Amino acid sequence: MKLYDGGRAPNPRRVRVFLAEKGIEVPLVPVDMGALGHKSEEITARNPLQRLPVLELDDGTVLTESVAVCRYFEELQPEPALFGTGALGKAKVEMWQRRIELNLFLPVSFAFRHTHPAMKGWEVPQLPEWGEINRPKAVEFMRVLDEHLASSKFAAGDDFSIADITGMIALDFCKPARIAIPDELLNLGRWHAALKARPSASA
Amino acid sequence: MKLYDGGRAPNPRRVRVFLAEKGIEVPLVPVDMGALGHKSEEITARNPLQRLPVLELDDGTVLTESVAVCRYFEELQPEPALFGTGALGKAKVEMWQRRIELNLFLPVSFAFRHTHPAMKGWEVPQLPEWGEINRPKAVEFMRVLDEHLASSKFAAGDDFSIADITGMIALDFCKPARIAIPDELLNLGRWHAALKARPSASA
Repeated sequence: MKLYDGGRAPNPRRVRVFLAEKGIEVPLVPVDMGALGHKSEEITARNPLQRLPVLELDDGTVLTESVAVCRYFEELQPEPALFGTGALGKAKVEMWQRRIELNLFLPVSFAFRHTHPAMKGWEVPQLPEWGEINRPKAVEFMRVLDEHLASSKFAAGDDFSIADITGMIALDFCKPARIAIPDELLNLGRWHAALKARPSASA
Repeated sequence: MKLYDGGRAPNPRRVRVFLAEKGIEVPLVPVDMGALGHKSEEITARNPLQRLPVLELDDGTVLTESVAVCRYFEELQPEPALFGTGALGKAKVEMWQRRIELNLFLPVSFAFRHTHPAMKGWEVPQLPEWGEINRPKAVEFMRVLDEHLASSKFAAGDDFSIADITGMIALDFCKPARIAIPDELLNLGRWHAALKARPSASA
């Protein structure tokens, strides 16, 4: 198999961090998104939505969507469990994964894509007002998350999970999206620092 | 256990359809979203994000996020499998579930929330221009889905899954969002009609 990778973009990074946590190595095919490589014929033939990453299996089967690629590897190699264990554990990971995805990662992405000058040709039409609206939305959810993390080591409880990976890539993405993470959110800061200190963070 | 339900809103409906497909009955607590019941103290205490549905277990444990609630029941009662079977099957359901959620359900929701007069007090600030941008985005993805459905009985292959449920609620939500589903998308129309003909559609 091979993984068409997109470098620094958040979704390709999410899969690389996940694989590093699992200790799984997959041959990467680098795609230069800066040169619009994700819109090439090679990628479009595999993913009509023209997004990365794309996993291609040896029989030619293609999987796209970062979380779907992660789930495939979770099923192939269940340990360490990054989607939770047991009915309640799996549901809690899904709950926090979705909460973080929809209320943090998505607003941060909108802020980046709709206000950053470099995104003008990518996000058509770019609507700066929509980007601006999303900055406070992201911070508002950070406060909810901070309160939750006062009594929870990781996003979904005692164990590290994909929800933490999504949280880390979303918080790291705040910098290019020009969203300041409030210093007073001490639990969030502690959690973010702990995630960045894991070896997987540099994957 | 009990399920705080939100009536006609798409996410509460997604869980009810899922439960109907599973043949699982859960006592419902109706919440009148029209009267802002989802912002009541009762709901806020259980979900600080003030959204429905909310599942409360007998020990007081709370689960939110429609897909997380569905996954909990999938783990409790695996048959019929609505999140796929096997590593590749589960990954394909996740892939189509996410594609439909992010590229159809989300744009349709944005169109509704940012242009419908009744949503003015709900979506603050309402940005009609953002709603308008999302209408063609939704239709663009319908074309991708239509092409996929030319050779796929259901969204993720031969078997019905949660990706189909998400697709049905998204397409049904096009009416209040005032998005016309193009008549020429015959595969999409066949699929939509088949989903609506299932007994679960009226749940």
